[in-house]
Formats: sequence, structure tokens, C-alpha cells
Amino acid sequence: MSSIEKASFEEIRGVFEEAYRIGLASTRLGKVADYIPELAKANADDFGICMKDADGRELSFGECEKRFSMQSVSKVVLLAAALAHCGFEETFSHVMMEPSGDSFNSILKLDTTSNLPFNPMINAGAIETASLISGDLSFEDMLAYARELCGDPGIALDEAVFASEFETGDRNRAIVYLLKSKGVLMGEPKRTLDLYFKMCSLSVNARSLAHMGLVIANGGIDPATGRRLISPEHVRPLKVIMFTCGMYDYSGKFSVRVGVPAKSGVGGGLVCAAKGPMGIGLYGPALDSFGNSKAAVKAMEHISKELGLHSFD
Amino acid sequence: MSSIEKASFEEIRGVFEEAYRIGLASTRLGKVADYIPELAKANADDFGICMKDADGRELSFGECEKRFSMQSVSKVVLLAAALAHCGFEETFSHVMMEPSGDSFNSILKLDTTSNLPFNPMINAGAIETASLISGDLSFEDMLAYARELCGDPGIALDEAVFASEFETGDRNRAIVYLLKSKGVLMGEPKRTLDLYFKMCSLSVNARSLAHMGLVIANGGIDPATGRRLISPEHVRPLKVIMFTCGMYDYSGKFSVRVGVPAKSGVGGGLVCAAKGPMGIGLYGPALDSFGNSKAAVKAMEHISKELGLHSFD
Amino acid sequence: MSSIEKASFEEIRGVFEEAYRIGLASTRLGKVADYIPELAKANADDFGICMKDADGRELSFGECEKRFSMQSVSKVVLLAAALAHCGFEETFSHVMMEPSGDSFNSILKLDTTSNLPFNPMINAGAIETASLISGDLSFEDMLAYARELCGDPGIALDEAVFASEFETGDRNRAIVYLLKSKGVLMGEPKRTLDLYFKMCSLSVNARSLAHMGLVIANGGIDPATGRRLISPEHVRPLKVIMFTCGMYDYSGKFSVRVGVPAKSGVGGGLVCAAKGPMGIGLYGPALDSFGNSKAAVKAMEHISKELGLHSFD
Amino acid sequence: MSSIEKASFEEIRGVFEEAYRIGLASTRLGKVADYIPELAKANADDFGICMKDADGRELSFGECEKRFSMQSVSKVVLLAAALAHCGFEETFSHVMMEPSGDSFNSILKLDTTSNLPFNPMINAGAIETASLISGDLSFEDMLAYARELCGDPGIALDEAVFASEFETGDRNRAIVYLLKSKGVLMGEPKRTLDLYFKMCSLSVNARSLAHMGLVIANGGIDPATGRRLISPEHVRPLKVIMFTCGMYDYSGKFSVRVGVPAKSGVGGGLVCAAKGPMGIGLYGPALDSFGNSKAAVKAMEHISKELGLHSFD
Repeated sequence: MSSIEKASFEEIRGVFEEAYRIGLASTRLGKVADYIPELAKANADDFGICMKDADGRELSFGECEKRFSMQSVSKVVLLAAALAHCGFEETFSHVMMEPSGDSFNSILKLDTTSNLPFNPMINAGAIETASLISGDLSFEDMLAYARELCGDPGIALDEAVFASEFETGDRNRAIVYLLKSKGVLMGEPKRTLDLYFKMCSLSVNARSLAHMGLVIANGGIDPATGRRLISPEHVRPLKVIMFTCGMYDYSGKFSVRVGVPAKSGVGGGLVCAAKGPMGIGLYGPALDSFGNSKAAVKAMEHISKELGLHSFD
Repeated sequence: MSSIEKASFEEIRGVFEEAYRIGLASTRLGKVADYIPELAKANADDFGICMKDADGRELSFGECEKRFSMQSVSKVVLLAAALAHCGFEETFSHVMMEPSGDSFNSILKLDTTSNLPFNPMINAGAIETASLISGDLSFEDMLAYARELCGDPGIALDEAVFASEFETGDRNRAIVYLLKSKGVLMGEPKRTLDLYFKMCSLSVNARSLAHMGLVIANGGIDPATGRRLISPEHVRPLKVIMFTCGMYDYSGKFSVRVGVPAKSGVGGGLVCAAKGPMGIGLYGPALDSFGNSKAAVKAMEHISKELGLHSFD
Repeated sequence: MSSIEKASFEEIRGVFEEAYRIGLASTRLGKVADYIPELAKANADDFGICMKDADGRELSFGECEKRFSMQSVSKVVLLAAALAHCGFEETFSHVMMEPSGDSFNSILKLDTTSNLPFNPMINAGAIETASLISGDLSFEDMLAYARELCGDPGIALDEAVFASEFETGDRNRAIVYLLKSKGVLMGEPKRTLDLYFKMCSLSVNARSLAHMGLVIANGGIDPATGRRLISPEHVRPLKVIMFTCGMYDYSGKFSVRVGVPAKSGVGGGLVCAAKGPMGIGLYGPALDSFGNSKAAVKAMEHISKELGLHSFD
Repeated sequence: MSSIEKASFEEIRGVFEEAYRIGLASTRLGKVADYIPELAKANADDFGICMKDADGRELSFGECEKRFSMQSVSKVVLLAAALAHCGFEETFSHVMMEPSGDSFNSILKLDTTSNLPFNPMINAGAIETASLISGDLSFEDMLAYARELCGDPGIALDEAVFASEFETGDRNRAIVYLLKSKGVLMGEPKRTLDLYFKMCSLSVNARSLAHMGLVIANGGIDPATGRRLISPEHVRPLKVIMFTCGMYDYSGKFSVRVGVPAKSGVGGGLVCAAKGPMGIGLYGPALDSFGNSKAAVKAMEHISKELGLHSFD
């Protein structure tokens, strides 16, 4: 039995409050991403943390309403959609589920080890999952799905971020054509990239991510509506792949130190699907050297330790 | 609550019996390792599976007494010993805890990405952990520790396997000198390799591995003796690293499909630390293309599914 | 003094005749390229060899009029044009002049070792040289230049080959976007690729290549017209880079065994700039495993040996 | 006809004198190697240049008597000895003759592209050539051969350098065991490495290297004695491989800018086998970022340009 089951809600609140304080204090140790101009506009001091549980309780500290772009967190949405649309076997015949040990935008293994991307949490893998659905699902379909997963009808395309992504997306163009040259891309390159860039540019907030984390933690059912958003057999690969590949080159350390399925994005977002079930969404645009929100990682270390959320304890 | 908690022991016995049948039927799909002559002598049809739980109950099917060399399963023993001897921070300042996505004996990343081995389950990482202890602990110390972890005083050095390892160990010699050239090897190269080769050559059986799996699954305490063999704070990294890196290039798939911390060796052994707590040891020298026991993987898929052992269900 | 200076023209004719016989006999050991459909239509038995010297003498054996696409031989034309247009220093600030040891279409070094392509004879390097001129020179300009270098007004764009190149050129698209993402591509991606594909699709024959080889061997002056087509200071880098990088992964062996600046293409063409000065053009679409014309390499070994054409004898 | 044939000896002297001046002025732009302690003791301001021609004439400027260790220049001696001992075909069935494009001590290609070292001028290739002879030839045999090639009975083993090489040679140990693990090493690892380290530690001077360069430039015959030291059919591969691979990662630039077969060592030595025939030996321990003597490269640029020594002019 994990600590969470024994803790009262007031105790949980105290843990999150302290985690917020810890995270806030560490924002100054991070650095806002500047690889696209729009991201550089973020406020480095911002930090917010939101928790939702299956009983409908919610905790919010700091900047939980401020919107930011999903960036790599959208790789989870793309994978969930590909699994729903194509099924487990079909999806994983196009992308592997192995941690790669390489940088998120690496093309090394793709060109030397395997024609298939190593997993759906690196760019090549996420572009591949986008290609699996880009022929049948429109961006509007995917936007609707993201809104459902996040319980947030306010999610919209951030046009400025999208323009920035499109403008600076040449490495992703290289990846899409490399995948096509190997005969593994399933969709039309431009359509696929358009969907991929747009998904990266969805504006969410910490609350949206808490909701999405809760849906995953709750086995795919949104407790707020009772609706199943992810098939039961697809929740497990989502959790495992988030656990092993979700935190860029810090994934191994995060899995040992925090031990919660999670996915970060360079926009500063972090979604966690924790025991309980509990969804935790964090926002802190000041990043560490791995590309993860400095504050969010620090806060999660505290929360996991205090509430016993580690998957292997 | 997992299925295991709800299942009666008779139901559990039935699941293992069926798993034994499934595994046995798939031995013919694998191939005995032949990279060292001694391994090639194994009987491809052999299969055995042994389960031990914290209540002292045990199940055995097939070849559970036949001894075979530990091979890569010893990487777990080396990591446990390094953690005990040096502590968490010191150990992981010499070896990382990231899945590498490369072959177990790869030196690519070591020479291009990082001076530190990516994790203790690849050869470079295990040689590094051996180097951390080879100055202070003798092989006899390590043999005693392996016997304790496995609850098996019969474990001994298989001299023929050791001679074979020594004879054919040039790639590992390359690795040890590469580590030394980078200034990261902590021990004397020959002493380190000697320890590494000897640990690979320890003769265990499926029962030994079940015991070792149980100790890990039970938080580091041997239920048979009540003695703590692994510090509580070291169990978690052991489990996580086994989960993310324990099954060679099949680690990702195994973590999705089976979801139990495990470590395989090319001698045909597989140790699993499952919920319950439950230790499962398997022996099937016919290997799949990844270097894992064909029968053992098939059997574990069945057991995990039927008893709900997946870590993320 | 090399043998060529001592040999009578009749002796030279005899050497070429025997080389033709040798080459023809080895066509059956090669295999026509099939990576684009148009190339696969070539006749594997074809072989032609043409020699032109500075005194206006010419020797032709076999298929010297049959047209085929230039393919990688056009990389020499692109480099000559870039040198003429941008000068030595500017050109080589955008592409290096080091042999890469990697496959012609590799992106490994580009992504791990250097942002600049290693040399202009690999795809990445030739695309970079195309980018240097694609903003200022039209395809028509380049076509005119190729016709001049080859003394062949019959050179034209093979539309079917171009369509094939365009259709199957995704790896080159990946390269152009990778170069752009690194900020080293000097031209607009699509315009650059269009020029690159069109240059690969120019239809030449063995006689054209003999002429082009002669112009280079003759220090940049076309002996037929007395016009300078390449600046004197640009002839040397052309020759050296052809010598060190011109024959794919066989470049080192060719430089030891034949020792003549040369460039091959998967269309079956081979241009050689030999001592004398002498230009040798060969056509044999049956390729060896390196992508060089089997017959052409065999014939050049004989010619170099008999006429003493090796650059280091 | 090259400029050298037209130049009077007084003009040649003037060119070398100016080259000496240029080289000397650039010593301060380089940095003495410090990867082994003995090398770090060199005087960064030293520079010497010595020329010998086939008529027995000699020019010396600066430090031409000071002894330094051969380092990588010995790779040429090892290759010449392997060719003499095993013949062309046998030698090049164990090491390739392709430029690698990688660092001199790289093991990347050895482990990913080819089991055979790419060429004899990188460490892996030189260790392989050492292995070809280490079973039959003693170090004393090789010392005698080096003395002959260099016309210098004063060459001796620098014991301090050898001790340093041995002490710090772990990367080369990694290479020798990697070669052995692939089944391509022909000699016993320790004996091979011992020979390799000792050859690196031979003390030569600029005059020795000038003599060695002259022997190669003169087709393998020592003009001073009339004795053949290298078979005629082995001179060509030596020259070509020096031309394409002799100057570390600057080989391509040196072949374009200077165009003379040459081999440098981190001890500061440079041997050149130039047209004429002419042997040029240089010594300048202040190195550029590629590991070549800063002064020696600058001096050779001047000499090649003024005397028309480029192989492709």
C-alpha cells in the first residue's frame, strides 16, 4: 500500500504546497528554451502545479491557468490516437518501443540500426505516429481528442507558435523525408508534418495536463464524465513508454528518482500519471540541460517521495 | 489490487503449470548460445521454472536443479554489491542509469556520447561496477554474497566456463582498457576483468534465481532468514534498471508485454522480481535472437497476464 | 617521364583495344543499378571507351555514342561551377575537402562530426555546392556549362530520369533539410534540389566524358577551342578531390591501383583526367558492389598500368 | 616539367631559407603535445628543416640534429616492413587503404562499418600492420630497418618516451583487443603493442626524416648507397596512402594545398617524399589543432608552391 492511500487530503495538500515552494525556488536554476522565438517569450519565473484525483478533488498552486504550447507532451496524444486508430499491433509495427539512449531529435539509429524509429517519444517516432493517422484524421479531429483528454475545451492552436515551428522545422523535415526514403512513413510528408507541428502548438495549461494525467492514471476513463477515452489495453504501453522514454535523456534518472510515468515538453509542461489514481500537471518554462522543466522535476521528486508514488516501491 | 492477491495458491500453481507447458513447447524455436564453447554444450530442450513467495511456498516445474552459468544475470549481483559497498551516489557517479538502446556489448556511446557507461546492465557498465569493488572485495567475498542472495550454498565457480570466458573475452578486454583510457575505470584492469569473468561463470539453477528474485521483490530482505541483504534504498534502482535495461534489446517490449523487473543471461537464465512479492527463476538455454531464453520469455508472458503481475496495471 | 610520352599512338591504340576487350568481358560480373526505374532499363552488356588527347586525336571502342545519365559525374561539374562562381575560399568554407570514409549518401558525419559536408563528391557535399550557385545560375546556365566542358551540344535533360530522381529523391530531401537545419545550406531547398536532380539527369556519352576529362587534364583549357573553361587554380582541387573521393568506397583502392583522378556515376559513366594530357570517358552500366562500372574499372587498371598513367609513379 | 627541374640549387636554397623563416615565425601559433609527459618537455620554439636530393645535396636550417620521437611517422616504417615481409596482397587483406574521415585513434568504423582497419595511418591500422610482422621480426630487426630507411645509425629507442607510451597506452590496448576480438589481429596482443609502442618511441631528427623521404621519393632506392630498401611495387601504395591519409584530419587540405606524400607525428616530425626526387624532413613540436607541426605545414606550403612540388600540377 502506497503512502497516498494512507494520506489525508490535507496531508496531500501540504505536500503539494511544499512542492510548489521547492519548484518555485528552483525556477532560477533553469533557462527558457529559445530554439523557437515564441518559446523565448515565456516568463522564466513562472511555475504552476495542479493535481486532480478520481474523486474530483483538485489542488492548484501558482500559474495553473496560463497557457503554453504542448510541444513534446503532444507525443502522448499522438500515440494514444494512433493506438486508438490503428490498434496496438499495427502501431508498433511502424514504431518500436525501445528507449533509444539518444537525443530526442537524433537520426543516428534511424540511419544505422533500424529503419523504424526506436519509440514514439522521440521526434522520429512521433512523426511516424502522426503519419499513421494523418491520412484519416484531420487536425480538427485531433484537436477535439486533445480537448477531451485534457478536459479542456479551451485548447486551441497557437498560431504564432505554429508559425515558429513551421519556420524552424527543417530538422523535422529531414526526419520525415528520411522516414519516407526508408519506406516506413505511412502518410504524406507535408500533411504529416503539418499535423505534427500543429500538435506541438496546442495551447494547454497545468490544469489540462493534470486532467490528461488523471485519465491515463485512471486506466483510460475520464472520472469527470465516466467516458472511456483510451482503450484499457492501450493504457499500459502509454504508461510504460512514458516511464522509460518520457523525460528526454533524463528518463532513466527520473524513473529511478521519481518513478512516475511522465512526459515533458520544452514549452515547460509536464504531465504525470500517478498512483492513486492521480493526475499531476506542471508548468515551468525554465528548463534544465535535458530540456525538462527544472521546477517541475524538483517538485515531482518531493511529491513522489512524500506520497510514495514511485512505481517500484 | 493485482490478480495475484486474489488468486489461490492452486490457481497460481495452475498458471505456472500452463506456463511451463507453453515454455517447453517453444524451446525448439530458440538456439543455444555458441559464442563460448562451454555454453554450446547445453541441452536446447531443457526448460525449468521455479517460483518462491514470501510465505515460503515454492513451485517447481522441469529442470530446476540443473546448474548453468549466471552470465549477465550476475550484472545484478555486481550492481547490488557496488551499491552496498559504495552507496547510491558514488556508484551512479561512475555509471549512468539510462537505457542505451545499443547492443549489450556496444562501445559506440562510450566513445561518442559519454565517458561513463550508460547503465550497469550492459557489459561496459557491469565492468565499471566490478571495478568499483574489485579493489576491496575478493571473488570469495562476491561468491559468498551471490550464495546469500540466491539462498544457495551450492553456487560455485564453473572453471570450464571461466576458462572459456577468459579465452574469448577480448572484447571485454577492449572495454576495460577503453574505460581506463578515459580515466573512469576505478580498479586495476586485470583484477576487474577477472572478477567480471568469474561472476559470469557462477553456476546457479532456476531455484537460485527464484530466491534472488524474491529477495529483490521483497524489498531486500530474505524471507527465509529474515536477514536484510540489500538496503531498502537500493532495491528501487535495482528494480527500475532491471525493468528498463534487463532484457537486452528486447527490454522495451518485455517491459510493455510482461512488465516485471527481470534480468536474463545467455546461459539461459532469467530472474524476475514480481509483485506479491514473488521471485521467479527460469532456465531455458535455447535463446531468441535478442539473447533471452525463448521459453522463459514465453512463460513469463503467460504468468504476468494470468496473475496480473504487470507493474503498470 | 611516363610511358605515355614514350608510346606511339599505335601502341596506345593497342592498349585501349585490349582494355576494351578486358572491360567487355567483365560486364557480366556487374549489375545494372535499379534504385531508380529508369536506370534499370540500361543494357548490362554495353561497354564503351573513348580517349581524347590534346593533339586532337581520339580513340573509340564500343558504345561511345549511346547516351546515359551523368548521375554522380555531375558532382564534378557542380564543383567546377561553384569554384568559378564563388572562388576557392568561399566554396571551401561551405564544404570540406576531406575524404569521409562513409557511404556517398551518408548523413552520419554531418550529424555527429561536422556541420559541413566532408567533400563535394558525396551527396551532401554536392547538394551544398548546388546551393552555392542555385540562387544565381539557372539550370540552363549549368546545362550550357556542362555542354562546354564536355564539348557536346547534344547534352540534354533526360526528363524520364529527372522524373525518376524527383520521385525517389527523399533521402536527398532529408539531406537538404538537414543542411538547412544546421544553417549551412546557402540556397533555397527546393531550387537547390531541383538543380541537383537535373544535373544528375543530364544525358552524356563516353565521348562527352572523354572531352571533360581532357579539359581537366589539360589544366582547364579545351584544346579543341583553346578556351579556358576552368581557372588554373581550380584545376588542382578538382583533380585532388577526384583522386581522393571520386570512386565511392573504392576511392582508396582506385587511387593505389589506377592512380588517375576520376569520377564515376551509377549511370555507368566514368570520367578520367589522365597524364598526357589525356581524357578518358567510359560507359558500362553493369556496376560493381561499390557503384562503379565494373568494366570501366577493369579497363582503367589495364590502361594505367600499360601506359604508366599512375600519378605517383 | 615541374619548377624543381628548372630551379638552380641556389634558387632552391633560397626557397628553403624563406620556408624556414616562415615556419619559425609560426611556431608560436602551435602548441606542444602533452598527452604523454615526455612530449610535453619539447621546446615549442624549435624548428628545423632538412632537404636531401638524389645527387647527394643537402640543405639544413635550424634544429636538424635535435632528436625527437617518431610517433606516427613510424606508421610508414611499419607499413613498409609489412609490405616487405608479407607482400601487397597479404598486407592489404588485413588492413584497407581507404581514408577514414575519422580521428586517428577512432574505433567507430572498426566497430560499425568494417572489421578491418580503414588504412595503415590510423592507430588501428598501424597496430594491425605491427601484428603482421611482430611474430617474425624482433624490435631489433625493425630498429635496423628504420636506421637503414633513415640513413641514420644513431636512431635508438627513447626509453623515457617508451615508458610514457606504455603507461598511457590504454586506448591502444583497447584497439588491439578489439582487433583480436574480431579475429583480425595476426600477432599476439602484447608483443604487437610492445613493437608498436617502441616504434613510436624511436628517436629521429629532421635529417633522418629527410633521408627516409628521399628513399621513398626515389622509388625505394637509397641514392647514398644504391641499395634498394623498398620494393618498386610497394613505393606506390606508400606514397598514395601518405598522400590520402598522412596528415590526420587535415589530410585532404594538405593534399590540395601542398600535394606531397607526407606523414606527420605528434612528436613534431614530418616526412615528405617530393618530386625531384627530394626528401624533406621537418621538426617543429608546436602542433596545430589537427596534431600536425604548425611550422612544418606552413613551411611545406611555401616550398611546394615555390618549387612546384604538387603532385597534380
